[in-house]
Amino acid sequence: MAGNTWGQHFTVTSFGESHGAAIGCVIDGCPPGIEIDEALLQIDLDRRKPGTSRYVTQRREADEARIVSGVFEGRTTGTPIAIIIENTDQRSRDYSKIKDVFRPNHADYAYNQKYGFRDYRGGGRSSARETAVRVAAGAVARKMLADRYGIDITGYVSQIGTIKLGAPDPAAARTNPFFCAEPARIPELEDYINQIRRDGDSVGARIEVMAAGVPAGWGEPVFDRLDADIAKALMSINAVKGVEIGDGFDVVAMRGSAHRDEMTPAGFKTNHSGGIQGGISSGQTIHASMALKPTSSITIPGDTVTTTGQATEMHTTGRHDPCVGLRATPIAEAMLAITLLDHALRHRGQNADVVPGMSPVPGTID
Amino acid sequence: MAGNTWGQHFTVTSFGESHGAAIGCVIDGCPPGIEIDEALLQIDLDRRKPGTSRYVTQRREADEARIVSGVFEGRTTGTPIAIIIENTDQRSRDYSKIKDVFRPNHADYAYNQKYGFRDYRGGGRSSARETAVRVAAGAVARKMLADRYGIDITGYVSQIGTIKLGAPDPAAARTNPFFCAEPARIPELEDYINQIRRDGDSVGARIEVMAAGVPAGWGEPVFDRLDADIAKALMSINAVKGVEIGDGFDVVAMRGSAHRDEMTPAGFKTNHSGGIQGGISSGQTIHASMALKPTSSITIPGDTVTTTGQATEMHTTGRHDPCVGLRATPIAEAMLAITLLDHALRHRGQNADVVPGMSPVPGTID
Amino acid sequence: MAGNTWGQHFTVTSFGESHGAAIGCVIDGCPPGIEIDEALLQIDLDRRKPGTSRYVTQRREADEARIVSGVFEGRTTGTPIAIIIENTDQRSRDYSKIKDVFRPNHADYAYNQKYGFRDYRGGGRSSARETAVRVAAGAVARKMLADRYGIDITGYVSQIGTIKLGAPDPAAARTNPFFCAEPARIPELEDYINQIRRDGDSVGARIEVMAAGVPAGWGEPVFDRLDADIAKALMSINAVKGVEIGDGFDVVAMRGSAHRDEMTPAGFKTNHSGGIQGGISSGQTIHASMALKPTSSITIPGDTVTTTGQATEMHTTGRHDPCVGLRATPIAEAMLAITLLDHALRHRGQNADVVPGMSPVPGTID
Amino acid sequence: MAGNTWGQHFTVTSFGESHGAAIGCVIDGCPPGIEIDEALLQIDLDRRKPGTSRYVTQRREADEARIVSGVFEGRTTGTPIAIIIENTDQRSRDYSKIKDVFRPNHADYAYNQKYGFRDYRGGGRSSARETAVRVAAGAVARKMLADRYGIDITGYVSQIGTIKLGAPDPAAARTNPFFCAEPARIPELEDYINQIRRDGDSVGARIEVMAAGVPAGWGEPVFDRLDADIAKALMSINAVKGVEIGDGFDVVAMRGSAHRDEMTPAGFKTNHSGGIQGGISSGQTIHASMALKPTSSITIPGDTVTTTGQATEMHTTGRHDPCVGLRATPIAEAMLAITLLDHALRHRGQNADVVPGMSPVPGTID
Repeated sequence: MAGNTWGQHFTVTSFGESHGAAIGCVIDGCPPGIEIDEALLQIDLDRRKPGTSRYVTQRREADEARIVSGVFEGRTTGTPIAIIIENTDQRSRDYSKIKDVFRPNHADYAYNQKYGFRDYRGGGRSSARETAVRVAAGAVARKMLADRYGIDITGYVSQIGTIKLGAPDPAAARTNPFFCAEPARIPELEDYINQIRRDGDSVGARIEVMAAGVPAGWGEPVFDRLDADIAKALMSINAVKGVEIGDGFDVVAMRGSAHRDEMTPAGFKTNHSGGIQGGISSGQTIHASMALKPTSSITIPGDTVTTTGQATEMHTTGRHDPCVGLRATPIAEAMLAITLLDHALRHRGQNADVVPGMSPVPGTID
Repeated sequence: MAGNTWGQHFTVTSFGESHGAAIGCVIDGCPPGIEIDEALLQIDLDRRKPGTSRYVTQRREADEARIVSGVFEGRTTGTPIAIIIENTDQRSRDYSKIKDVFRPNHADYAYNQKYGFRDYRGGGRSSARETAVRVAAGAVARKMLADRYGIDITGYVSQIGTIKLGAPDPAAARTNPFFCAEPARIPELEDYINQIRRDGDSVGARIEVMAAGVPAGWGEPVFDRLDADIAKALMSINAVKGVEIGDGFDVVAMRGSAHRDEMTPAGFKTNHSGGIQGGISSGQTIHASMALKPTSSITIPGDTVTTTGQATEMHTTGRHDPCVGLRATPIAEAMLAITLLDHALRHRGQNADVVPGMSPVPGTID
Repeated sequence: MAGNTWGQHFTVTSFGESHGAAIGCVIDGCPPGIEIDEALLQIDLDRRKPGTSRYVTQRREADEARIVSGVFEGRTTGTPIAIIIENTDQRSRDYSKIKDVFRPNHADYAYNQKYGFRDYRGGGRSSARETAVRVAAGAVARKMLADRYGIDITGYVSQIGTIKLGAPDPAAARTNPFFCAEPARIPELEDYINQIRRDGDSVGARIEVMAAGVPAGWGEPVFDRLDADIAKALMSINAVKGVEIGDGFDVVAMRGSAHRDEMTPAGFKTNHSGGIQGGISSGQTIHASMALKPTSSITIPGDTVTTTGQATEMHTTGRHDPCVGLRATPIAEAMLAITLLDHALRHRGQNADVVPGMSPVPGTID
Repeated sequence: MAGNTWGQHFTVTSFGESHGAAIGCVIDGCPPGIEIDEALLQIDLDRRKPGTSRYVTQRREADEARIVSGVFEGRTTGTPIAIIIENTDQRSRDYSKIKDVFRPNHADYAYNQKYGFRDYRGGGRSSARETAVRVAAGAVARKMLADRYGIDITGYVSQIGTIKLGAPDPAAARTNPFFCAEPARIPELEDYINQIRRDGDSVGARIEVMAAGVPAGWGEPVFDRLDADIAKALMSINAVKGVEIGDGFDVVAMRGSAHRDEMTPAGFKTNHSGGIQGGISSGQTIHASMALKPTSSITIPGDTVTTTGQATEMHTTGRHDPCVGLRATPIAEAMLAITLLDHALRHRGQNADVVPGMSPVPGTID
């Protein structure tokens, strides 16, 4: 209700502030018997971690996740899994410059108006640091999706600022700091990002995320459609301003004869729908995209007001993060994983028994 | 849980199939004392109703809403409001052509795989007919938002197929069947739609929806952000494949210095954020957009399979709806209204008491 | 959230006032393929119906349930099942005696303080008439519990006022208006109830309700225990003031050596726990009890206040219902059925896969 | 959904096993500005803590709560409050005696059948150790209820085994290890408990819990009644088998003329209803009772089965806890506090605006 829990069946309750003692989450509804440990979580956490390249923020955080409950002898028990990540690089800051001023395009003003005051240290609860716990929880969901359903979730950056990127080598996206699936163009990206930083400015990014192997039938009409929940999942990530499923906004100018995914006994002929029809998975690969706005903290001064409503100018100093989208791919993957597993369990609860004599179409149709 | 209820505090539980006896909804959590009656609901229902122009489906439905509970002496009582719309044009159809075949790009296949069988009459639960109840529920939410908060919700069609439309006359969108805010271009739209229909084809559409007067502070971090819930609300509408808040996908190529909404004591200088920052309303006008795919039912034959997996060809006959997006504006407005009121009540429950001595910024800042 | 929905997976959203146009409910999350029709619902509705004997209220209601969605060709489709019961005996009453006064021990005062005003006609939403929709929804749950799990739910009245009743003939409870499982004592009950009515007074009742055949493993620690949800389910019935599971309050004075249910390979030796241990079903018969207070409306005058706070005296005239508990057995059975099916689906969603190599104890242990 | 979260608006998500690394909870939906710190939580935690007298279990736990988020500069921020209690006395145990056997009347068997295996160390998740986090969360709720509404929540033990206890000195219940409000009888209790322990046996207990100062209007018809949620709250506590509101089971034999709480302009004449009518608080003191079963672990051997279904005998050795009810009073108070605050916020969200011109009865009526 208060908004810090995701999901209906596989639920993730997130807590923690950017510069508080710790961040973490409680996963409830995870089926028993899934083999997980801290090393598994660390793989994804390290992909999102700050300070890993010169193109992202230099905050030093180990981002070490500690599992304190819900796992016994290496397997989930079916009871809540609590994960805690201590904040280690949050001490002895000087917050005097942001304590009494609203940073433009940050959540500062909105939080202040909502709660009457705010934890101003590093953005408090509104900081993207919170997404680390989503990544940890996502690692649990990915493990079960892979083990029980053979589902593979991947993502990559398809645009940084004005540079559009293809995906000739999807696996490469896991091995470079740009999450770029077109590795030959990484030098071009480096030059571009370096120039943006020298300008004291920032740019946005576009991320693609896919899930292969999702069976047909997941998603709940009419409000909790799978596409609706994926849209919410991605839009809930910091800085995201747009979400698409399949062809997305391109469908506006398309003709029905070009867009519809015709079917044959061998499967669908195309996947314009992005693997979801009528809000329910069709058995094809699920494909979603999201747009992230340019980083709000830039060194170019900007107009703003103080917490008492007086005009002032915001001067952000020090190194900044020229493109927040650069670290968003593992977050998008995690949110997709969590959303899919939640729907898998919901579907299983309601529809585990096939209606006698009226079974689904035999055979796989992807 | 099973997906037919929207909201946490102001909840709408929808029911009904396209060709069943009736559709309807139960609204729970509506505050007491709101003046509503069936005539109020009818205003919005008539805007969405089929058969109102030659450019939309010719199904004849009175779409008359009957309020059977929750209203006493003209006002809501605080108890559940049940609204029932009888289906009147659903009789004596011949379903033999669709009973045993999956219509391409419809929900037929996905529903079949989910439930083991399906109500094939007119799409059953997956039909856009269900959106009538959203419009009825939205009318209740709009009334309270207007009465208690002075909020005004409007929308218009900004693109039909390849034709982009401006909004020089927003009020005009309420008076023409295209929901077009640029009325001088209606003849052009008529020609375009007529041509699409003659081709036996269809096109998509793009809708803008705005809420003016929303106070700062609505929305719940971190998952139930206002923008995340709006994204889900719009993506849950039939045929929607993309959602944007504020500048949407344009942010990808923007620089931070151009995108950020600077603040002055007189208010924000721009509204690139679409009225939401950090997932919480900023006091500016909320602006969202959505993309609807072209109608799936077209007269051009297409490949598909039968319910037993055999290849066949789909021939849709009779008049069809060349652009489902044409009737989507009131649905988008309704979903925005429901989402906003839900968040208004959630915020009020949690934050009605301002922290003593730490009040929000004095004065309006829009 | 607003309190008119029961359940997490198999949900029942109730609506309607005692003297409004109709009462009803929407069931969401019912698995597909269950064979139900209106005749099935009517069996249980007729057991609860008013006017069936001289010992209960003489309101004349057909209580005919109409299923308007979610059932196709005789089976549930997996989509919401809306059930509507029109109110037929609610017209042309004279409410002047209760409009401006709070009836003692009714919900009148509490509703007024909560909502600022109230639908005073027959108690409005607070009337026990609402329980008819619980019985209708319960009939759907019972059908699935019986078909898929072989579960049998029964109940009887174990005490009326000062008369305690055994259960030598449990089946008899379905065939007499007292829901009495000791039919030889019915003449004694008739005399007793007639005397209470002649006194213008009322008495309470105690109901037992059982579910046989529930498999071990239903219920969710730590808050949504099966016993906790059954307690809520029964306490949510009008006039209920106490709930027990198994030995209930008798456990206070028992010794652990007498209370514990020892186990053998052939099963449990006793069932003091009422079929639930650690909040989870043990495979034994579930047994719960509830206490209903005496009817609040009696002809003996009582002190009360008007809606403006003035002292007055309440004079209820006409025939009254000397023991509201007399019709509560089918309601308790319905709530138990709804609660069990909800937990069955929750358990199935989370735990359908048994941990490889670590299966539950083989064989039934009841 | 998976059962480890309490509440709709003020939510408590609990985690942790008896002998895992830590237990704790996340509170979401707590309004901003409440002054809390770890010392506040410790007061109630110390009341529940094991090892405080020779009449309860001798496990040594500091039960020190650490608040890691949601509090800034001494006040709640409106964001999630995570509380962690490290387990310190859980190491180097020998579990060989319980690993492969189901302890009679424990949750061992039910958990095993539910999840396929279980964390057998000290009962794992089913241990009453989990209630420490309820007490910590309850302290937060009590603080806000006291600060904003002036509500006072108290409890005491009204029966231990066969010894019934009055409450001539309610305040005394906070100062003795029996939570006894009749301190003169403590020597009698000491003798009784000592004898039970010497017998190697255990007894049950009955607890009363009250909330004074609750305004009229809290509670949501028809399912989420205040009494229904209190019943669930208390029944969710380990070992509880019965719950009563007001006169409870005594109402069965009462006449309506004796039970009804008549009203006068000065207030209600009696409080048989326990402060709740029609499921909504009436403004009177809320009064609930609960029955706890005798401790399941006793030294008298008992029959049971192994995890593979073989007959065996359970021999519990060492000191045991002769009456688990002795430490249950602060847990009951905590659950009542959490439940009340949740309803306070729900009511405020939905009904903060009084219907113009139709206000509640002026003046307090308690």
